[in-house]
Amino acid sequence: MSLFGYRPHLPRFSAWAGLLISLASSSAAIAASPLDRGSILAQARPEEWQTLAPDRLMYLQLSGGQVVIELAPQISPLHVANLETLIRQHYFDGLAVVRLQDNFVAQWDDPATDDGGDPRQARSLGAARRTLPPEFSRSIAADDRWTPLPDGDLYASQVGFLDGFPAARDPASGLEWLVHCYGMVGAGRDIAPDSGNASSLYAVIGQAPRQLDHNLAVVGRVISGVELLSSLPRGKGHMGFYERPDQRTPILSVRLGSDLPAGDVGQWQQLRTDSPSFARLLDYQRSHRSAFYPRPLGRLELCRVDLPVRHLQLSVGATPAGTPH
Amino acid sequence: MSLFGYRPHLPRFSAWAGLLISLASSSAAIAASPLDRGSILAQARPEEWQTLAPDRLMYLQLSGGQVVIELAPQISPLHVANLETLIRQHYFDGLAVVRLQDNFVAQWDDPATDDGGDPRQARSLGAARRTLPPEFSRSIAADDRWTPLPDGDLYASQVGFLDGFPAARDPASGLEWLVHCYGMVGAGRDIAPDSGNASSLYAVIGQAPRQLDHNLAVVGRVISGVELLSSLPRGKGHMGFYERPDQRTPILSVRLGSDLPAGDVGQWQQLRTDSPSFARLLDYQRSHRSAFYPRPLGRLELCRVDLPVRHLQLSVGATPAGTPH
Repeated sequence: MSLFGYRPHLPRFSAWAGLLISLASSSAAIAASPLDRGSILAQARPEEWQTLAPDRLMYLQLSGGQVVIELAPQISPLHVANLETLIRQHYFDGLAVVRLQDNFVAQWDDPATDDGGDPRQARSLGAARRTLPPEFSRSIAADDRWTPLPDGDLYASQVGFLDGFPAARDPASGLEWLVHCYGMVGAGRDIAPDSGNASSLYAVIGQAPRQLDHNLAVVGRVISGVELLSSLPRGKGHMGFYERPDQRTPILSVRLGSDLPAGDVGQWQQLRTDSPSFARLLDYQRSHRSAFYPRPLGRLELCRVDLPVRHLQLSVGATPAGTPH
Repeated sequence: MSLFGYRPHLPRFSAWAGLLISLASSSAAIAASPLDRGSILAQARPEEWQTLAPDRLMYLQLSGGQVVIELAPQISPLHVANLETLIRQHYFDGLAVVRLQDNFVAQWDDPATDDGGDPRQARSLGAARRTLPPEFSRSIAADDRWTPLPDGDLYASQVGFLDGFPAARDPASGLEWLVHCYGMVGAGRDIAPDSGNASSLYAVIGQAPRQLDHNLAVVGRVISGVELLSSLPRGKGHMGFYERPDQRTPILSVRLGSDLPAGDVGQWQQLRTDSPSFARLLDYQRSHRSAFYPRPLGRLELCRVDLPVRHLQLSVGATPAGTPH
């Protein structure tokens, strides 16, 4: 009876379920497919990885670490341009994460501009615009970098990837928009559709709040460090706002990658959604079957699609060497 | 120019998007519908609320507060019975949250039984069984308390609510099962389907991992305090396990509601999914339109459905008085 409670090896969810987030959690231990996630990525050709331009990367520095956000100027050009103006003015340095609503969003901005704040204390937006035309959707264009996801969607007639971002399309109206999946970043606003200016941002940290789609401007996606936001204490005030200033998490700095030393930030690459390896990965997620998961998923919803990102360290005078992140 | 940065009132998502989680975050400030969420719930008749039996409630006490889980013995009877045996032996007291994988699960059990643990140190399961037949699904029965959700689903031919829990059905196979929405609690296991015994539990804290459906036994749903799990630091080890013992969150105690003083735990009620008020609430979520959300959602996915719960304080010698939680 001495073995009571003994259970040898507990892989528990070792299959791809646990592998959706990062290469770091990769494991082929019990995968039965001939090509598992790790093998698919290891065999991807260099040109299947797209290098993300440093000026499209936003580095949000918290005391707990760095959140890296890929911006989408090609989709929300006015909001991202305004955001870049704010970042270059160091607008966000010293501001705070002001709101954490469980299964919904983390939001950061100038507390003086929020309900209960003193607007006279608000930081100047400087050269940035105070209002912007809504960029909640845009017209479908023939030269879009669009990768369809044929698995269907409850809300939109078409879903897929627009320049690598999860997105939806409505051919009837001719519009397309980014979808509020986990880790997507948008611009908060007041009631007026043109009241957003990207000085208040939120990141999705729960079940995709699709009611935000097409109603707010999405400015990018967290590609690293989303857990630094999702693990913050929840706010107990109205809508998850913190009730006291000392409960907020300070923002140490926000910078664009192009304004940081290349040796410090390295290089970020995303697996191209129009690559054969990405198609293989989608199929793996749909059809994966293992001893642990005898029943495959069959279909794959947009917001559960694995969008692999990797980080390359740059050595001075050397070519980038791949170090999966 | 003194108004730079000034933005009067920032409701930001004041509509129902922010109201999915708890009555506490309710606000009708900018709702345009004649009956908003708060009004629907306020007008619900007493008999539309179902009191949850104390012996079906599991109280997980962490240093940060209390997580309350509604058990589902009617759906996973063997796992819940084993879990109750473990709870009554105080098996979980002093164990820990051992794993936190972002956008996936929080898991708690005896660290000695996990990879890297020393199985000789494992706590005895006592009178509880070490293996259980898998309860990953059950047969559809004519007397099921089943409330269909007609909005459709990507994975299952039918979805709805089984005894108030989010669930799916496949009439072709005659099976039904609980769905891994945010806050659902399941029993971890090894590779063998019968290797689960409810001594290792997980709660979903991200985009519904539907690949777990029908592959694991679901034992209940967090009805209060899920944020105490979802806000824990993420584990940096394999699959989100913590790398060092001191990173784990200790479990102070786990008790059944029926083993706690009624005056301490009060009474929990859930809005019946077969009630007119619940139907009104579903329709509100689908069709809600406001100044902030000019574009209604149209359809409602199972794992975004609002399942209102309220807490009643019990005064000695008095009838329960409703205090929305």
